Parts: sequence; C-alpha cells; structure tokens
Amino acid sequence: MMNINNQKILAMEKRYRTNFINCLSGFKSINLVGTISQERVTNLAPVSSVIHVGANPPLMGMLIRPNTVPRNTLENIMTTGQWSLNHITEDFYKAAHHCSARYAKNISEFEQSGLTEEYLSLHCPYVKEASVKIGLTLKERIDIEVNGTHFLIGEVQEVVLPEDTISEDGFIDLELCKTITVSGLDKYHRTASIDRLPYAKVRDESLKEQSS
Amino acid sequence: MMNINNQKILAMEKRYRTNFINCLSGFKSINLVGTISQERVTNLAPVSSVIHVGANPPLMGMLIRPNTVPRNTLENIMTTGQWSLNHITEDFYKAAHHCSARYAKNISEFEQSGLTEEYLSLHCPYVKEASVKIGLTLKERIDIEVNGTHFLIGEVQEVVLPEDTISEDGFIDLELCKTITVSGLDKYHRTASIDRLPYAKVRDESLKEQSS
Repeated sequence: MMNINNQKILAMEKRYRTNFINCLSGFKSINLVGTISQERVTNLAPVSSVIHVGANPPLMGMLIRPNTVPRNTLENIMTTGQWSLNHITEDFYKAAHHCSARYAKNISEFEQSGLTEEYLSLHCPYVKEASVKIGLTLKERIDIEVNGTHFLIGEVQEVVLPEDTISEDGFIDLELCKTITVSGLDKYHRTASIDRLPYAKVRDESLKEQSS
Repeated sequence: MMNINNQKILAMEKRYRTNFINCLSGFKSINLVGTISQERVTNLAPVSSVIHVGANPPLMGMLIRPNTVPRNTLENIMTTGQWSLNHITEDFYKAAHHCSARYAKNISEFEQSGLTEEYLSLHCPYVKEASVKIGLTLKERIDIEVNGTHFLIGEVQEVVLPEDTISEDGFIDLELCKTITVSGLDKYHRTASIDRLPYAKVRDESLKEQSS
C-alpha cells in the first residue's frame, strides 16, 4: 500500500493533482446538464457531481465550479430556475464528453456535439438521446466558502425513462436504462450487477438504537 | 418512454418513492464512513453521497441525513473534526451493507459487521479491508434549509491505496483497486472499462470562450 499525505498532495503538479483528487470519491454518476439562456441559447455540460438530497420532497443536488466549464450553466439556472439532467449512455458518451470543451456563450453545445434538443413540460432542453431525463427547478443555492463553488438543489418536476425499467418497489434498473458511470474526469465504464441486498437489520434487538 | 411528473412522485408510497428517487442520479460511489465518539466508540456507516469539491486544496463533500443512520456519524464528526472514507470492494460489500442497520450509539459497527479497525495518522478508524482509504478533516458544515440535511466538506489529509494503481498523470485505476459502485440504496455493481477520453477541445477557435 502507498500512503500519500496532504503535503505530498499539495506538492503535486496541478494536472496530476486534479486527476488524483477527482478519482478519490470512487465511481460517479455522469449526467449532461441542459439549460437555456435568456437569449435562448441552449447549453450542455457534463457533470459528475450530482447526488441524492431527499425523496420527500424529491430533491437532487449538484456541485458547480464557477471557474470551469459550467459557468454558462450556473448563469442559465440562476436566470431560468430550471435545468435538466440526462443520463449518458455508451451510445453517445463521446459526444457528451465533447460538451466539456470551452465554447463561447453564444454557441450551443447541442450543435457542436451533434446531440438533439428535446422539450418536455419545462423550458430547459433535454437530450433526446439520453435514456433517463430529469427536469428540476431550483430550490436552494449554497455558496461554498472554502473554495467558491456552488451547490445547487433542485426539486424533481418530471422524469422520463424507458418502459419496464422500474421494479415493483420503485427501484430503477439503470443497466436496462443503459446508464454508464465515470471515474476521475474522463474514464467511462459500463457496469454489471453483483447483488441487491435486503434492508439491513440489527441482529440482536438489545443492540438496537431506541427511537426517541 | 414513461413520463412521471412531480404530482405522481408525491403520490407514490413512501418506500417506493425512496427507492425511485435514490436511483435518479445514476451510479454512485459507495464508501464506509469511519468515525469515533468522545467515549471512543467507533462507528461505520455506508454513504453514497460523497462528491469531489476541489483539488487545491483537496476537498471532498458528503451529504448526511440526520434522521437516518448516520446520526452518530454526524455527532462524531462535529466532536472530533475527522472522518475516514473507505472504498467498498466486492470482498466485503455484505459486511459493509450491514453497517446501515440501526445500532445503538454504544455499539461499534466494526464488531457487528466483522470488519477490522485500522489506524493511520488521524484519530478516526479506517477499514483495514478497504483498498482505498481517505482521511479528512472538517472544513465547512452547511445546513441545508430545504430538508434539514447537512453537507460536510473535508480536506484530504491522507490517502492509502494499493501500489501501482496511479497512472503517470495522477489518474487512479479504480478497477485495479477493486472499488465497486452502487445504484439506489442497495444494489451493488462491478464495472468494466469502456474508454478514457482526452481533454475536450473546441473544434473551431472562433467558437471558443475568450478568457476575461
């Protein structure tokens, strides 16, 4: 095993450190964020920082770095209060990755990547090629002091997904949806099921947390 | 395709909705969070809400729900200012999953799950069986108004990982590390590499964002 401490991390070359730290969390979701500007220019940006925030109300969060690509994304969300999340599949991951290039504000990544705009009940664009599409409205914006990033929380307004991918208990089979996963900034992986486990229970009642 | 709107989501049975919304983000990282209380009781809790926050300084964030299992986790982090993240592998995912059971505060999930405590330079326990281990110190705690959850940001103090898993450019091969991924609350998956893509560049210089 290797042991790498904080000092060694701070001494790493910039690009090396970026790759290294971006891998630490483990495998990540990868979504294209679809937004539209006040001037009606559509925007797409890949993000691997989407997390579950709560089920009731249905909330999802996403961290955005203002000084990298999603700058237009943040502006558009603050203007319109809406964004879409679109699961990336193996069929279009190269086009999706291309959306991380630094296009000017008046250029749509849909055109540059060859992906197709689709509209549902919100104003923001969805990616027609995506299998799972989620429309969100902004509920809370948190400015993170320690490094000037922003955490945006949205409420799920609509979900579009393929037929017959939801189990009886609400679980979505993401492999049937062809959703893929990413590690670091740029490596894409498909998945294979190991197991689904039942709700974990305390083995001996006397060791259980007492509800207050 | 199926279209499920906010009203339909709110009308779902509670457990169904929890499963459904927990699947929406896509595949997630799965880590065991290791902490220790003031009374020196160790605690382990699985979390799938860890994200990258920044590389310089090296920061990671994690969302915690106070009213579910990681209650002791939050208390311990607020007391000690430290926690560990431990990548779950196929070799111990069942033991890791068991740590989500609601054990009382004076019971260590290490003992109950059969996983082994390990100590490095911080006070918090690591999981010996984990391949990638990250030690963090608390930098910022954000209380999310919209649903009473907490987003904790920590600075990476040390990383332990297997030899020969870091590429020349700092990228960590998580498959070599045997790290697995999760969907929803309880489904575990292994991964297989599709491709690693180069840094995306604007194809036509005239379409590029001008740095200000």
